[in-house]
Amino acid sequence: MKLIAGLALAASTCLAQADGAHDWTKSRWGPDDQIGSANLMTPERVKAASSLVTTGKVYSLGMIVGSDTPAFPPRSLSVTVLQPNQISNSGLGNNAFTYNDDIFMGWLGIGPQIDGLGHAGVDHVYYNGHKDSDFAKAAGLTELGLHNLPGLVGRGVLLDMAKFYGVDMVEEGKAYTADDVKAAAAKQGVELREGDVVLFNSNWMNLLDGANPDPKRFGAAEPGLGVSGAEYLAELGVMAVGADTWGMEVVPAEKEGEAFRAHQILQPENGIYILENMDTRELAKDEAYEFLFVLGQARLKGAVQMIINPIAIR
Amino acid sequence: MKLIAGLALAASTCLAQADGAHDWTKSRWGPDDQIGSANLMTPERVKAASSLVTTGKVYSLGMIVGSDTPAFPPRSLSVTVLQPNQISNSGLGNNAFTYNDDIFMGWLGIGPQIDGLGHAGVDHVYYNGHKDSDFAKAAGLTELGLHNLPGLVGRGVLLDMAKFYGVDMVEEGKAYTADDVKAAAAKQGVELREGDVVLFNSNWMNLLDGANPDPKRFGAAEPGLGVSGAEYLAELGVMAVGADTWGMEVVPAEKEGEAFRAHQILQPENGIYILENMDTRELAKDEAYEFLFVLGQARLKGAVQMIINPIAIR
Amino acid sequence: MKLIAGLALAASTCLAQADGAHDWTKSRWGPDDQIGSANLMTPERVKAASSLVTTGKVYSLGMIVGSDTPAFPPRSLSVTVLQPNQISNSGLGNNAFTYNDDIFMGWLGIGPQIDGLGHAGVDHVYYNGHKDSDFAKAAGLTELGLHNLPGLVGRGVLLDMAKFYGVDMVEEGKAYTADDVKAAAAKQGVELREGDVVLFNSNWMNLLDGANPDPKRFGAAEPGLGVSGAEYLAELGVMAVGADTWGMEVVPAEKEGEAFRAHQILQPENGIYILENMDTRELAKDEAYEFLFVLGQARLKGAVQMIINPIAIR
Amino acid sequence: MKLIAGLALAASTCLAQADGAHDWTKSRWGPDDQIGSANLMTPERVKAASSLVTTGKVYSLGMIVGSDTPAFPPRSLSVTVLQPNQISNSGLGNNAFTYNDDIFMGWLGIGPQIDGLGHAGVDHVYYNGHKDSDFAKAAGLTELGLHNLPGLVGRGVLLDMAKFYGVDMVEEGKAYTADDVKAAAAKQGVELREGDVVLFNSNWMNLLDGANPDPKRFGAAEPGLGVSGAEYLAELGVMAVGADTWGMEVVPAEKEGEAFRAHQILQPENGIYILENMDTRELAKDEAYEFLFVLGQARLKGAVQMIINPIAIR
Repeated sequence: MKLIAGLALAASTCLAQADGAHDWTKSRWGPDDQIGSANLMTPERVKAASSLVTTGKVYSLGMIVGSDTPAFPPRSLSVTVLQPNQISNSGLGNNAFTYNDDIFMGWLGIGPQIDGLGHAGVDHVYYNGHKDSDFAKAAGLTELGLHNLPGLVGRGVLLDMAKFYGVDMVEEGKAYTADDVKAAAAKQGVELREGDVVLFNSNWMNLLDGANPDPKRFGAAEPGLGVSGAEYLAELGVMAVGADTWGMEVVPAEKEGEAFRAHQILQPENGIYILENMDTRELAKDEAYEFLFVLGQARLKGAVQMIINPIAIR
Repeated sequence: MKLIAGLALAASTCLAQADGAHDWTKSRWGPDDQIGSANLMTPERVKAASSLVTTGKVYSLGMIVGSDTPAFPPRSLSVTVLQPNQISNSGLGNNAFTYNDDIFMGWLGIGPQIDGLGHAGVDHVYYNGHKDSDFAKAAGLTELGLHNLPGLVGRGVLLDMAKFYGVDMVEEGKAYTADDVKAAAAKQGVELREGDVVLFNSNWMNLLDGANPDPKRFGAAEPGLGVSGAEYLAELGVMAVGADTWGMEVVPAEKEGEAFRAHQILQPENGIYILENMDTRELAKDEAYEFLFVLGQARLKGAVQMIINPIAIR
Repeated sequence: MKLIAGLALAASTCLAQADGAHDWTKSRWGPDDQIGSANLMTPERVKAASSLVTTGKVYSLGMIVGSDTPAFPPRSLSVTVLQPNQISNSGLGNNAFTYNDDIFMGWLGIGPQIDGLGHAGVDHVYYNGHKDSDFAKAAGLTELGLHNLPGLVGRGVLLDMAKFYGVDMVEEGKAYTADDVKAAAAKQGVELREGDVVLFNSNWMNLLDGANPDPKRFGAAEPGLGVSGAEYLAELGVMAVGADTWGMEVVPAEKEGEAFRAHQILQPENGIYILENMDTRELAKDEAYEFLFVLGQARLKGAVQMIINPIAIR
Repeated sequence: MKLIAGLALAASTCLAQADGAHDWTKSRWGPDDQIGSANLMTPERVKAASSLVTTGKVYSLGMIVGSDTPAFPPRSLSVTVLQPNQISNSGLGNNAFTYNDDIFMGWLGIGPQIDGLGHAGVDHVYYNGHKDSDFAKAAGLTELGLHNLPGLVGRGVLLDMAKFYGVDMVEEGKAYTADDVKAAAAKQGVELREGDVVLFNSNWMNLLDGANPDPKRFGAAEPGLGVSGAEYLAELGVMAVGADTWGMEVVPAEKEGEAFRAHQILQPENGIYILENMDTRELAKDEAYEFLFVLGQARLKGAVQMIINPIAIR
């Protein structure tokens, strides 16, 4: 009880805390903790989440990503395919083993992605009080690297905000407030719980592959989680928050002059993972509001973000 | 019955087939099929696999991968962390949003990886008869790209070959024959079935992080699946075959002059996925021989391989 | 005399030569030669070229190149600037040494470039008879790599084809024939000699930075050297041929069905270097038809091409 | 006279200047100047330098650079060669145009390199008073980018410090003082002048390719320019300073706690270019103390550094 109150107060950029207030720079999982809310991935919760599988339908939440996927500037990527040392020959061995390989050049924060706990900070201070000057080395993060995260498995909950607001697609600048989040869950008849992976559907991805694609609009702004919504989910203690937009939270921000405040509430202040560009539309169409959520991101040493493809099963 | 016989015969590099024999260049899932054995991922099988979750324990099968991970030459990779446009400032907004980003330069076939169906061929012919000259474009695969694969979810089976052979670590050059595979399964009391993801444990990764690491030996050769073992698993119709080695199959090959013949049997000839550098040791230690296997690889457009971290849950 | 006749005959794609004909797969500089026409860079010629400096004016022939520079697909590039390990600090030492670094990801054949002798071949055969399967390894060329080339210094000659044809900008598809080349030189009163670096000006770059930029047209086709022009320059024994276009030679080709035939005449068949995207407009404006030409390309081991900035001095 | 005195005083890290002192954050070439000492590249000097060519011998000062070249951590590079879309075919056209291409992934500050004026700063302040937060954008430098530099042409002077000190190879930690520089020039009978490109030879590169290579020692420290030497050259107004070491200046620094102070004196405070890993040994062997120096670095937009191969001609 005290803890929850403390977390609520912690939703502030003030590093120096009043007596009695929770100091967000100290993780509830101890000074050595590297994985934050992934500590909530207990066998009990995983087992309970697995029991949500009733139809066996598999949902691939990672959209297809390529060099034309809208990206936060100056991020870009390319994939190049080559056939090493197989010119005018039949490859290796007398069994003619030929093969293709591929090279990736670019940024890991493009398309469907997880923001590791080393991604977002409050004035250079990150989860568990780590200062970027201490751990954000050019050769890779020495703390909070995504390789520390074994994966995320838990109960997934979809909140279909387009349906909740009664629109085909939620507009940019629309903030999901705490009241909206609660009301959407209630309307769907689904309870939000500690340890959940909460995904928001806005149908924003229709701007990429719908009838009238508008990638420029897609990347210029977005609907998404508001500050009170983020505070509510942080209080609740969810494991991850995802959305079908490039930045998960509302852009432009509710309060002029603020930028990515929900990121700060979730990540540095509460150790909660953020999942972006999650294609939740099939889940929404099926009214699949509860499911087993499984994410196994590549464990690149020292990485900040990672292109992902979480799997929902129900 | 007829199909199985046909598949057995198909285990040959001969492209021109005798009358009546199965022509492996034609997929059993039709001429337009892009995903091969992933077609076996039916709701029924997924549901059944989910019921294998009994303890809720989560296993992260993707080893941590970095620039020092042994790689098939000339593959290499690097991760670079940077703070775009945040020099001597407090980032974005009056809430001081600071952030780290990262860049990846290198090959996607390093460390824990999935070989997509565009990776391995027989004399320039790949799964479903695609010729590399037609689809292996420098800008990305136009057929068989890994973006087509939604993910792999199914029943995972671990065969602990180190335990089966009664050794701490299986030696390089040791081939898992069809008889060995069957006997290992029988000894463990586990049945291999169509649609399974079969993982082999040899403890070969002890050479990377054990008491006496020897990365050079790790990369120079390996124990692994033999030709008859691959034929058996292909006949059975498994969905994927993985191992705790860099190349999954035995190196050097059983027959002198051959190279990666098991890759050919599984991939081009039968559309079966290959998973390499899977850290199966914890599963082996727990004698976790059956489990829910979930892989969601990043869906990079046109990619051949991908660094992965499959999740096993039991 | 005999040699020149031989070279003329060699301008054929026929690998098997009639008796008495010159076999272009054997370099005139011997079987071990790696640098072709750069052998013409004798002290005498260099000294003579240096004497062409009369005004001391320096011309930078390498256009500025960035991610928006038109490139032969699927080539692309990016430059990323970062400040390694200098977050919220004053860098290294008590003297506060701060610094920027940069990363390049992309292809070396973009913008102003030299084609090394390992770039262009005739049906997989390259300069001095090297087969690509033997030397074009994924980890870098093992023969003909650009690191072998110390640089190119010599007499530069500009042929202003726009002026010769009496147009502001030469149109795409216009081929410089042997007769045109000779006539243009004669009109300018400049003699072409063995060992020269011959540069062609068409003002094609006006499509990039002129009053009405049209980068699409720039990259879609181009005016340039024709087959007879290439044969003539090869007979003459020039050291390098450059132009203010992305591909140096005329596109589309004079003869339907041919592609980059002038490249083959110059490179594999005669060991002559090709320079592309050379900004020759200032030289043309100044009627600077003879000058000291100095190119020092970065000597990257095993590289095929290189982004360059040759210097002309007169 | 006044100017020179001012420059001497400017050799201080103090940003706030006493009345009357020269303020190094204001370039002598005006507030809009982007190229610093390259302004000294006048036609007169270029013409005079060209007259130094007497033998026509060409020296390639850029050492060969590859993935095994010692680099300042965490810099690395790779070159990958591929044959785009030429599998089992004869390339483009009925003339069978086959070709190799190459990809570079890595840092531009490796091997023989030029430090652009955007490289080295004093507590985040760079040449002409630019603050890194203003111009050092992730997508490329918006001020002081190396693309602004047309090249460097001028009188090159070699000071053979190994010969001057009477040793085969100068040891690490040996600082070239102002007196040493003057005495070495005098001993060689060569005068140092404004606008010169001054190169120092120590034979340090013998550690890379000599009889007993020791790349670790090569990269761990180095002999080089000391603080007084840098101040002297800055007063003199040279155009560039180069050396046959990875960092040009002495490491470890003369004064404990200082790091790359000579870089600061030359670059931000005086706009002088720095050239590293210049292979000066052949010049030294030939006692070629005066020569025409020509550098044309690739003009990558927004780049900080560049791998180069300057040409010396005498």
